[in-house]
Amino acid sequence: MKATIVTIGDEILIGQIVDTNSGFIAKALDKIGVAVHEMISISDDKQHILDTFAKLQNQVDLVIITGGLGPTKDDITKHTFCEYFEDTLVVDATVLAHVTEIIEGFYKRPITQLNKDQALVPSKCIILHNKMGTAPGMWMKKAQTVFISLPGVPYEMKYLVDYEIIPKVVCEYERPYIIHKTILTYGEGESKIAERIEDWENNLPTFIKLAYLPNPGRVRLRLTARGTDKELLEKSIADNVTSLTQIIGDIIVGFDEDDTIEVVLGRLLTQQKKTIATAESCTGGKIAQMLSAVPGASNYFKGSVVSYATETKIKVLGIPEELIQKHSVVSAEVAKAMAISIQKLMQTDYAIATTGNAGPTKGDADAEVGTVFIALATADEVVVHEFNFGQPREKVIDRTVNKSMELLQKEILKFV
Amino acid sequence: MKATIVTIGDEILIGQIVDTNSGFIAKALDKIGVAVHEMISISDDKQHILDTFAKLQNQVDLVIITGGLGPTKDDITKHTFCEYFEDTLVVDATVLAHVTEIIEGFYKRPITQLNKDQALVPSKCIILHNKMGTAPGMWMKKAQTVFISLPGVPYEMKYLVDYEIIPKVVCEYERPYIIHKTILTYGEGESKIAERIEDWENNLPTFIKLAYLPNPGRVRLRLTARGTDKELLEKSIADNVTSLTQIIGDIIVGFDEDDTIEVVLGRLLTQQKKTIATAESCTGGKIAQMLSAVPGASNYFKGSVVSYATETKIKVLGIPEELIQKHSVVSAEVAKAMAISIQKLMQTDYAIATTGNAGPTKGDADAEVGTVFIALATADEVVVHEFNFGQPREKVIDRTVNKSMELLQKEILKFV
Repeated sequence: MKATIVTIGDEILIGQIVDTNSGFIAKALDKIGVAVHEMISISDDKQHILDTFAKLQNQVDLVIITGGLGPTKDDITKHTFCEYFEDTLVVDATVLAHVTEIIEGFYKRPITQLNKDQALVPSKCIILHNKMGTAPGMWMKKAQTVFISLPGVPYEMKYLVDYEIIPKVVCEYERPYIIHKTILTYGEGESKIAERIEDWENNLPTFIKLAYLPNPGRVRLRLTARGTDKELLEKSIADNVTSLTQIIGDIIVGFDEDDTIEVVLGRLLTQQKKTIATAESCTGGKIAQMLSAVPGASNYFKGSVVSYATETKIKVLGIPEELIQKHSVVSAEVAKAMAISIQKLMQTDYAIATTGNAGPTKGDADAEVGTVFIALATADEVVVHEFNFGQPREKVIDRTVNKSMELLQKEILKFV
Repeated sequence: MKATIVTIGDEILIGQIVDTNSGFIAKALDKIGVAVHEMISISDDKQHILDTFAKLQNQVDLVIITGGLGPTKDDITKHTFCEYFEDTLVVDATVLAHVTEIIEGFYKRPITQLNKDQALVPSKCIILHNKMGTAPGMWMKKAQTVFISLPGVPYEMKYLVDYEIIPKVVCEYERPYIIHKTILTYGEGESKIAERIEDWENNLPTFIKLAYLPNPGRVRLRLTARGTDKELLEKSIADNVTSLTQIIGDIIVGFDEDDTIEVVLGRLLTQQKKTIATAESCTGGKIAQMLSAVPGASNYFKGSVVSYATETKIKVLGIPEELIQKHSVVSAEVAKAMAISIQKLMQTDYAIATTGNAGPTKGDADAEVGTVFIALATADEVVVHEFNFGQPREKVIDRTVNKSMELLQKEILKFV
């Protein structure tokens, strides 16, 4: 079973917003064995939409469209739907009641004609009720292809995918098995890993595909098995992961496909009943924000001091002014003092401190742009690491955050 | 002049990574008047790539392809390029010297065959030299369509777009003028705005297009004028912005297309020589991170205390334990005390404090999931706002961050 995801909106084609909806939909389809053939972003233009529909007709089984369902004039998807399916718009009483409830009940505003128009749907469509907003999803079929239109607002789209579309597709279509297994590695580059596993890779069965997904300092290897015999696929994936681990076990840090490093860390810290705090200068609170974005983070994350200004390091973290004058704010000594201070202040088992110069200019520091110190305090010691993450600013910050997470994970794993 | 952007990679089609490259390229092309016709994501499959090239041949002037240029086996773009252009791969001496310099000079590793293979390029291509990495960009032309292949690593892709592709396109092609003007509003929904400006909208000239770009609590209106007479376009945009301001001036907060709220705030704070600090509970450092992500932030952002745990509020911010016991951590009183404390601690002009329950569970708080208090301290007073941002967690955090930024902006604008 094949699907294509279509995003409608000029704001995407001029780069004003990044389409994150397609990725969410793709992941949800992939999990139930629906292969995504293509993702296409097109303009808010009736003819462009019609041409795209015609091209996809009978090429794929499922076309999922997001965007173009809001209340204003630049939203034309619904009318184009009617034209493509030779249908007319009718008022749906259930949707109208729902829109009225949201506008008058929740927002306490009088309902307007534009609001009411959201209850207009093509007469032949199956309505996907949107509990998260006013625009309903629409499911229509022409020959063997189903076209589904969804609002572009992410929370509304996600709700309709999870609670309406996926259950309906699972119910109505037979699908092959797809099994993914992602192996997270760090410390070696793509070329180096490829050389180490060349023989293993050449011996993979034809129904298993390998992909390298590189990030700075971190490569994920993804195995994908596709077929009808679920047991065979599972066994083959498991066997190949075992043999891969024998070759590069030294750089493998995890296996779970959906795991981000902050989720892995959260799980480890919770299991071991350990706590963490951060003192952040160049990362500006990004480590804190990542740690706290995980549900249940209050079990292990106590907090952070973002000591962006030098005076904050002195006043809030209590770093001696002389130490800063002697070594500069971007130094191993200051990183170490920050880690010790925050660990003590928040009484945690672990503490991470970052200080560096992310650029573009030198700011308070003497250090070169790109120079970063990361200090990790544990029960026994404080270790300081020095890096040069180059440029630009965004990359220096991201790499500092990633490296901090990795150092912490490596430290915790010693005790697992 | 029309372009289509193609992203190659199974990892995008299964939703494992979100394609942010296309948005960057689209923005760069849009600025020089190249209209992006479509963005397409396709699989790492030779036939799929060839079919896509054939379909785009003569449909657009420019095809920009990212992904599939790394050193490993799952990267097949380069070979497919050769097949499509009936060409062969040859070693380019300049690229080889550059790859050798990076691997042996910077990484201090012996160069491998896989590294060397990065210097293989189609014999007929124009090489776009990649100072940020080992894989070069390639520019090839067939009939009237230029195909450009770029590495998928964002920093490398961005460098090649800014310093190689854009200058070359500007030099070699005539393009129409495209002028965008974005009007940032907040406080009213899409439908409400549409009703207020209906007459104005109906009177727009045909060469100006209006789009609504809604976000929770914030709607951007984008005007796009396209044509050959630059002066006419500029005058018409300016006139229409003036007449629009007469109608909805009360909800307009800014105009600059590329401005994010943190950039606007940074500019305002710098102009007025004011400083800011944050005390964050439910937002976990995200406000600090946004403020500090702006180059030059050290001029106005002093830092933050992320007081995720209740004990951190007591110990680091000095909030009286009795106050927390009496009102609960999620309360107007605690938000106010946090704002006053951080303003004093970091000696800033403004301070923002957030405390709320982002869910999914209640945690330390009595408050319902979605309840958030935002306190804003100025020289004269502390104002506390209460919200219910509903669910899920991600939305509560994002809306709290956005609303905090808006409240701060509104406050500063009083004095502009």
